[in-house]
Amino acid sequence: MSLQKYIRDIQGFPKEGILFKDITPLLINPEARNKCLELLVSTLKDKKIDKVVGVESRGFFFGMLIAQELNVGFIPVRKPNKLPYKTISAAYDLEYGTDTLEIHIDAIQNGDRILIHDDVLATGGTAKAVCELVERLGGEIVQCNFLMELAFLNGRAKINGNEIFAAITY
Amino acid sequence: MSLQKYIRDIQGFPKEGILFKDITPLLINPEARNKCLELLVSTLKDKKIDKVVGVESRGFFFGMLIAQELNVGFIPVRKPNKLPYKTISAAYDLEYGTDTLEIHIDAIQNGDRILIHDDVLATGGTAKAVCELVERLGGEIVQCNFLMELAFLNGRAKINGNEIFAAITY
Repeated sequence: MSLQKYIRDIQGFPKEGILFKDITPLLINPEARNKCLELLVSTLKDKKIDKVVGVESRGFFFGMLIAQELNVGFIPVRKPNKLPYKTISAAYDLEYGTDTLEIHIDAIQNGDRILIHDDVLATGGTAKAVCELVERLGGEIVQCNFLMELAFLNGRAKINGNEIFAAITY
Repeated sequence: MSLQKYIRDIQGFPKEGILFKDITPLLINPEARNKCLELLVSTLKDKKIDKVVGVESRGFFFGMLIAQELNVGFIPVRKPNKLPYKTISAAYDLEYGTDTLEIHIDAIQNGDRILIHDDVLATGGTAKAVCELVERLGGEIVQCNFLMELAFLNGRAKINGNEIFAAITY
């Protein structure tokens, strides 16, 4: 089964010149979704992962399924002012300006083995910020795990030193 | 197992006077999460659900797990300008002003049997807007399914006529 068949190209979203990869056809098809989940966890056997970190908000979809499949905790990393308890935050660069991500300070215990999951590895700015949050709380990053990698943007360079897995590469 | 033990009260979030129910302790504990999922699907046997609609963004967490457990499609309902394909939208009242939710126009086929899931039933405004979106696309609402119901806000009144289930009631 080709998973790419379930990723829909949307030209000009969210703005002109961008070719957006829409994952909703993958979410709505249980066979394709199962196949994708199988791939996402395929390299995680014996990795002794303690918790999965999913990044707001498209990282919540498969992040939750991976956590459930591994029977481990799930931690949401969110945009500012969404997490209600005490947080730490990390800023990352956008094309214009910066954005910020937050994590609850009690989500990770020192030495926890963490899988970071997001839908897409693009320029790597988001992933780098999430790595920073996990490490500041004492977590050990086992793998940065993505549904898709836009390899031509070379996001890997920003998080090198970490194991990186993507189910689909463009 | 009492699930309420895994819901954390946060006083004054997102603003003064609000007692926020934080579900992150439930997400991070696989035993409690499994117990919660078991409850959420407990009334769904033989209901022949075709698709689960999850509401941005805390409805994505258990919405995805329910869809996976039932082996059916998942449809995200999102805030404006987040869904990349063609959408329809419904407005709902907030304390001050209104907000809007969107769904992809091709997410539901006429006659699809739909489970709507969100984390919390409060005043019912969001749930009512989601019901409207589902019905406008020809979906049949089988159940409105919530992790928590804040019964004192009487949100049920806004979506009466639909079957309503909540795993935890306050």
